[in-house]
Amino acid sequence: MFISNNNRFICIFDKEEIKNLIKTIKKTFLVYRAGSYNLNKDREIVIIGCGASGGTAAQFAHKTDRKAKITILEQGKYPQYSKCGLPYAISGIIPNFNDLFEFSEEWFKKNNIDLKLETYVEKIDTKKQIIYAKKGNKKIEKNYDYLIICTGASPTLPSIENLDSDGVFVLRTIDDAKAISSYIKKKANAVIVGAGLIGIELAESLYKKDMKVTIVEALSNILPTVFDDDISELIKQNMPDDINLYFNHFAKKIEVKNGKIKKLLIKDRKSGENKKIDADILVISTGVKPEIELAKKIGCKIGETGSIVVNEKAETSVKNVYAAGDCTEYIDFVTKKPVHVGLGSIAVRQGIAAGVNAAGGKHVLPKGVLQTFTSEFFDIEFAGVGSTTNLLDVFSTVSGKLNGSSLPDYYPGGKKITIKCIADEKTGRILGVQAVGDKAAQRVNTFACAILGNMDIDTFRKLETAYAPPIAPTLDVETLVGDIVALKLSRKK
Amino acid sequence: MFISNNNRFICIFDKEEIKNLIKTIKKTFLVYRAGSYNLNKDREIVIIGCGASGGTAAQFAHKTDRKAKITILEQGKYPQYSKCGLPYAISGIIPNFNDLFEFSEEWFKKNNIDLKLETYVEKIDTKKQIIYAKKGNKKIEKNYDYLIICTGASPTLPSIENLDSDGVFVLRTIDDAKAISSYIKKKANAVIVGAGLIGIELAESLYKKDMKVTIVEALSNILPTVFDDDISELIKQNMPDDINLYFNHFAKKIEVKNGKIKKLLIKDRKSGENKKIDADILVISTGVKPEIELAKKIGCKIGETGSIVVNEKAETSVKNVYAAGDCTEYIDFVTKKPVHVGLGSIAVRQGIAAGVNAAGGKHVLPKGVLQTFTSEFFDIEFAGVGSTTNLLDVFSTVSGKLNGSSLPDYYPGGKKITIKCIADEKTGRILGVQAVGDKAAQRVNTFACAILGNMDIDTFRKLETAYAPPIAPTLDVETLVGDIVALKLSRKK
Repeated sequence: MFISNNNRFICIFDKEEIKNLIKTIKKTFLVYRAGSYNLNKDREIVIIGCGASGGTAAQFAHKTDRKAKITILEQGKYPQYSKCGLPYAISGIIPNFNDLFEFSEEWFKKNNIDLKLETYVEKIDTKKQIIYAKKGNKKIEKNYDYLIICTGASPTLPSIENLDSDGVFVLRTIDDAKAISSYIKKKANAVIVGAGLIGIELAESLYKKDMKVTIVEALSNILPTVFDDDISELIKQNMPDDINLYFNHFAKKIEVKNGKIKKLLIKDRKSGENKKIDADILVISTGVKPEIELAKKIGCKIGETGSIVVNEKAETSVKNVYAAGDCTEYIDFVTKKPVHVGLGSIAVRQGIAAGVNAAGGKHVLPKGVLQTFTSEFFDIEFAGVGSTTNLLDVFSTVSGKLNGSSLPDYYPGGKKITIKCIADEKTGRILGVQAVGDKAAQRVNTFACAILGNMDIDTFRKLETAYAPPIAPTLDVETLVGDIVALKLSRKK
Repeated sequence: MFISNNNRFICIFDKEEIKNLIKTIKKTFLVYRAGSYNLNKDREIVIIGCGASGGTAAQFAHKTDRKAKITILEQGKYPQYSKCGLPYAISGIIPNFNDLFEFSEEWFKKNNIDLKLETYVEKIDTKKQIIYAKKGNKKIEKNYDYLIICTGASPTLPSIENLDSDGVFVLRTIDDAKAISSYIKKKANAVIVGAGLIGIELAESLYKKDMKVTIVEALSNILPTVFDDDISELIKQNMPDDINLYFNHFAKKIEVKNGKIKKLLIKDRKSGENKKIDADILVISTGVKPEIELAKKIGCKIGETGSIVVNEKAETSVKNVYAAGDCTEYIDFVTKKPVHVGLGSIAVRQGIAAGVNAAGGKHVLPKGVLQTFTSEFFDIEFAGVGSTTNLLDVFSTVSGKLNGSSLPDYYPGGKKITIKCIADEKTGRILGVQAVGDKAAQRVNTFACAILGNMDIDTFRKLETAYAPPIAPTLDVETLVGDIVALKLSRKK
């Protein structure tokens, strides 16, 4: 009860009010001690999608604010699992599909994160900050203070006739992988359309399952969007001869028998010639498109790659709405052009930023993605950093390439390593690197660090790398290739 | 014949003079075309010492100026060989001592480098720029335009009684290594005094030769000057139990029988207690001292570590005199304090600078050495960068350590990797790193690049490292350890 009296307030409390007041003070004090800055109520964070970015965002939001109420709404049946691990579960290197789960439903429960699976978001009201979703027939209304959109991407499908036949697959989800696995037959013909990362990883997996493998690629080599031809050639060195490669070929039409795929008709892009190849199973691996429908509906800015535009804090253009992972675009660190990358490593890093920032912390990403990546193909490790095959749109470049050994010449067991390094002709700044061979990924990480630090090649080539006869030579290939680039640059001046 | 006539000169040439004139013009033109800026005569470069720095200096001087007359005066019997490879030639991993030669006498000849072996420099006249040397009884006088001193270092010997007994060795030269090799007997007792890099590498070699190995170290662990105790402990993980370790012990006295070593008396630094240990062979590996006598005599500035002071061009304080390698001191990149390091990697880099600059090119080293190093001990790779154990003299530091796996949890075959990272409390700048485990050297190289770029830990921890299930996790231990350091730093603020 309040009485106003000449600009002074007199408060008279009854017993019940005093009790409640003490409760409120206690609670406020507790919240304050727990480090939450919202003294009124616990922060509500809703995450749509529980892939690499969504799961990571939840984890880091929880770490940042232990009192935050975090909800994940996931369409699929499964909590966060590794999509990148799918080809290795198919080959059997990873013994069980369940091994791919990175965080179990129990883990989310234990960490006070409300993971709602098989839950489909129908509508978002950004004014009232309410999400309308459905789980089976059950309607769900969920308030949010901060929303994180992690809707991911889905496979693009080229226009091939009879694509709906039995035996035609994509590889994006754990269910896709299980379906492919159950379809594998020894000595049967497997055709993979698309020689990108997932395409060649799957090709190797199916080959190891004793299938006859054919790869069909519209461009001129494997990994054509991330490597130059000379580097792609090196990656094929250990590839078994009995894998068939059709480069510069489109897949056109599927021939069907009893509803099942039997053959694939492919067309030579240059000569126009058609060929029929045996195909008992066909996997389409020609890239992905971002899932942006929900974001678009609430007015999130969609960029020129057709993905949700986010900044270095993983914020979208809509207030209190973040986005992370394969549904987003961000700028490339070197070219400053928007890119939709779709790498797990970037999804996780954006997930961290979205989670921390949505929970009231501060996590600012570098001003662009480096696009560092790696994988292996029949025991040849490769890695790269930078939009190396697209740099010429923005820069005049100079590049150098060096084949060397991982060890000093006099020490037995040295392994091959080839590094190609590209620098800006004007400033000498390192722009990108392609590497194949021994410890390619770790060597590329060193270049990634140099790029992040805007280092020029003359500084980098003088880097004091670790040397010991059983480990590395006095001058590593990674700095020696810098000498070549620096020499070429000096000749241009 | 010249005639002067009212301020005009009339030149009258005879046939012979005309011939000579044409020769001179031709020669000058050729030199000019070859890119030498000295139009009068070919540049004379003399290098004292044909170790890693001397041999490298010669090679790069020749690359820079193909017409330069390069002479190497080397006291020993051999052209450039790998000192770091000696323990592995003793163990037999490198099958033959001759394999250690990095450049043969023929190579030097073919490259027009006059390598004079077993040649001892007696005096240098820096005014006349003449070197007086001796090869056997033959006196040699050698003019130089530029002199490069690469006199290296020699082992320091602690004061141990009867050090001149049979069976006592050091390990610095190929002859030392051959002598040790010929003395090895299966099941005999080998004692190594000093648990630095060479000490432990040799310990492993002798163990692999079926010797009973004991290591005696005055400080508290192996590699005590480059690693903290917790890291040294990890390096010992795979070490066989039957290698005896005596830490905090001095070697005091050798007991001799028939002129040969039989036992070594060691003393506990703390308790003062004496022990006698069986020793059929003793190798002293307690460090090196720079060979600076010649440099001192000609007035080269000697620094506080007792080595020749050089700058980023490998110049000494004396005009036209360069120095490189283990006889020099240079500043540490992080602490800016002078250091005498003695790593082959630094010797080679200084050799490049000395060679290129002495030959008229330009090669400027970074403003300090990073002291990046690596090796392995019973299949455990380790590496480090920065004066990590001495940083506290200059900085208030914060450090974080993380044990992790080289692969994602769900992928089989992940190997252990532990990284300790030290940053400046004030600025967050990365100061040094110690690492043990999978690809430690390459991981440390990435940190070395960050240090060279003066990167702070908050930037580094967001580095986009390469990820693929068979190669590396989405977040590598190297960036995750950065998260720990960054968190500790934020708590200090």
